[in-house]
Amino acid sequence: MAAYLIGIDIGGTGTKIGVFDRSDMRRAKYRADIPTRLEMDGVHILPDIAEEISLLLEEAGIEMKDVLGIGAGVPGPVIQDENGCAVVNRCVNLNWDVKDVPGELAELTGAGRVALLNDANAAALGEAVCGGEMDGTSVFVTIGTGVGGGIVTDGKAVTGAFGAAGEIGHMKVSPQHPLLDRIISAGGDIDRYGDLEYFASASGIARMASEALKVLSDDSSLRDIEVLDCKAVFDEAKAGDCLADELVSLFSDTLGTGLAAVAGVIDPDVFIIGGGVSAAGGFLLDRLVKDYRKTVFHASRETRFRLASLGNDAGMTGAACALL
Amino acid sequence: MAAYLIGIDIGGTGTKIGVFDRSDMRRAKYRADIPTRLEMDGVHILPDIAEEISLLLEEAGIEMKDVLGIGAGVPGPVIQDENGCAVVNRCVNLNWDVKDVPGELAELTGAGRVALLNDANAAALGEAVCGGEMDGTSVFVTIGTGVGGGIVTDGKAVTGAFGAAGEIGHMKVSPQHPLLDRIISAGGDIDRYGDLEYFASASGIARMASEALKVLSDDSSLRDIEVLDCKAVFDEAKAGDCLADELVSLFSDTLGTGLAAVAGVIDPDVFIIGGGVSAAGGFLLDRLVKDYRKTVFHASRETRFRLASLGNDAGMTGAACALL
Repeated sequence: MAAYLIGIDIGGTGTKIGVFDRSDMRRAKYRADIPTRLEMDGVHILPDIAEEISLLLEEAGIEMKDVLGIGAGVPGPVIQDENGCAVVNRCVNLNWDVKDVPGELAELTGAGRVALLNDANAAALGEAVCGGEMDGTSVFVTIGTGVGGGIVTDGKAVTGAFGAAGEIGHMKVSPQHPLLDRIISAGGDIDRYGDLEYFASASGIARMASEALKVLSDDSSLRDIEVLDCKAVFDEAKAGDCLADELVSLFSDTLGTGLAAVAGVIDPDVFIIGGGVSAAGGFLLDRLVKDYRKTVFHASRETRFRLASLGNDAGMTGAACALL
Repeated sequence: MAAYLIGIDIGGTGTKIGVFDRSDMRRAKYRADIPTRLEMDGVHILPDIAEEISLLLEEAGIEMKDVLGIGAGVPGPVIQDENGCAVVNRCVNLNWDVKDVPGELAELTGAGRVALLNDANAAALGEAVCGGEMDGTSVFVTIGTGVGGGIVTDGKAVTGAFGAAGEIGHMKVSPQHPLLDRIISAGGDIDRYGDLEYFASASGIARMASEALKVLSDDSSLRDIEVLDCKAVFDEAKAGDCLADELVSLFSDTLGTGLAAVAGVIDPDVFIIGGGVSAAGGFLLDRLVKDYRKTVFHASRETRFRLASLGNDAGMTGAACALL
C-alpha cells in the first residue's frame, strides 16, 4: 500500500503543498509554499503545483507510485458534474470558471487518485481526523474576517446539495444584547439584524468596538488603542476593561446563539473553533459554551467544544485526509 | 427473504400499527389503531402492541418468520446505551423512564429485528423513502401546534449526538416584518424574539391573529370568524382579506428565514413540508419558497420544496422503513 499522501490548499494568494506519511497525518513530512498566480484566468495554478510536487518528491526521494493520491482544497464551490465527478464551479478567488481539477491534476502529475473539496470542508476534515473525531458529527467553525465552517460526519466531509453545507456565516441573526441596544439607541451605525458574521467575526467585533467608542461615553482602555482590531478587544477584556468585556459578551452571545441554531439542525458531537479569533483561546471558549447553553435546546446542552489544533495547515492536511 | 415489515407509531394518545409488504411501502397492507394506555408508568403499552400484532398477523395469515422485523417510533428521545443499543431516554409523553424497547418488543413478539427511532425522525424517513429521496439529504418539517423536523441522508435518519437533530422548532428567531412591528407598536402582547415555533406554527399564527385583531383597527373578515385558528387565517388570506394575508406573510417570512438558516447548515436537496399547516398546500408552498430565496445563501437558492404525502401515517411508515 502506498505510504504517502499529498495535500494541497489552493488560496487566492498562496498555495500550500504537503507530503504526508499516512501513519502520521498531524504534520506534513515535506512541504512547500508557493504563490498562486491568478493571471490569465488562473491557467498557471495547476501546472505550478504539479511542478512543485515533482520537485518535492524528487528532493524527498519519493516516487509517485508510493503516493496514494492528491487531495486539493479550493476557495470556492465544488459540485458534481454530469458524470458524477467533482469539479470547481466558478471560483472567483482563483479566476476559474468550471474546472476539472481532478482530471487536470492527474494528467499533470501522474497521480492515480485526485480528490477535490472546498477549502472550508477540507479544514473541517483535517481538524476532525487529526483530532480523533472519526465517529459522529463535528462542526468546524472558523472565525476570521468572516465566519466559515464545515461539517464532518463519520470521517467524511458533508458537502450539501449545492456545496454550501457549513456556510453558517450567512445565517441571519438578531442579537438580543444590552450593548447592542445601547449602541443603536445612541445613534451608532449598526444594523439590528444581519448575517452571523456581521456581528460575530474579527471584523464584526472591530466594527462594534469602533461604533461603541464613537457614540458611547464609557471610559475604556480601548480609547488608547491605535489599531482597534479583534485582538485588541479581547486583550483589553482579559485585562479587565468593562466596555471591551461587553463587546466580547455581545460577540460570544451572538455566536453562541448561532451555534445553538446549528445544534438544532444537526446536533453535533463537537464544535471545533478555529480561525484567527480562536487565538483568544480558553477565555473565548468558556464564555462561548456558557452562552451556547443559555439558548440551545436542552437535549444538546452537553455538546463538546474545543479549539482547533492545526492552524493554517488545516486545509492542506484535510485535503490529504480526503483520500483516506 | 421475509416479505413483510411492521411499523409502529406510538403516540401519547393512540398507537398505529401497520403491516407492510416490502414491495410497496406507500401503504400498510394491514393496519390497526389502538389506544396508548399510559397508566402505571406505561407498563401496558408494549404488551398491548404485541397482542395487536399477533392478532393482525393471524387475521392476515402471516407468520412472524415472514416478517423481516418491527420498527417503532416514539414521541421522545432515543439514545444509544452503553452497549450501543437504541433505548428510549425518558419519554414523558409515554410515562417511560429509560426503556429498552427493542429488547422488550423482541421478547414479546418473537421478532428477529426491532428498530427504534424518534417519531419525527421516523416520519422524515417515511416521507423520504416513499418520496423517492434516497440519495442526498432531505429535511422534513412538520408544522402543527409546534414545529418539528427530521433529517434523512442517503436513506438513513440523522439522529445527532443527543437525539436532537432536526429539532428546528426551538431555533431562536427575530422576524423582521412590518406586521410584527405594527402589532408590537400598538401594544400587542407578542415578543419580538422567540423560538421559530412561537411565530411559525399553527398556534403561532393563531396567536398573532388574535393579538392583531385586539390591538389593530384594520378592517378584516377575520373579525367575523368564531374559531380563529390557523386554517381560518389561511382561508381568509386565500379569499383576499388583507390582514389575513399579512399574517400569512409574517408566518411564511419567518419560516422561510428559519429554513434558510437550516440550509446554511446542511444545504439539503429538498425540504418536505408536512403537518396540519401543510393543508394550506400550494398557497403556502409558493410563498414559502419566495421568502426562503430572499434570505438564503445564494448557492442554495434552488433547493427543492414539496408537500409531504403520507399524512398521519408518515411515522408508522417510516418506522417500518428503518428496517430496509
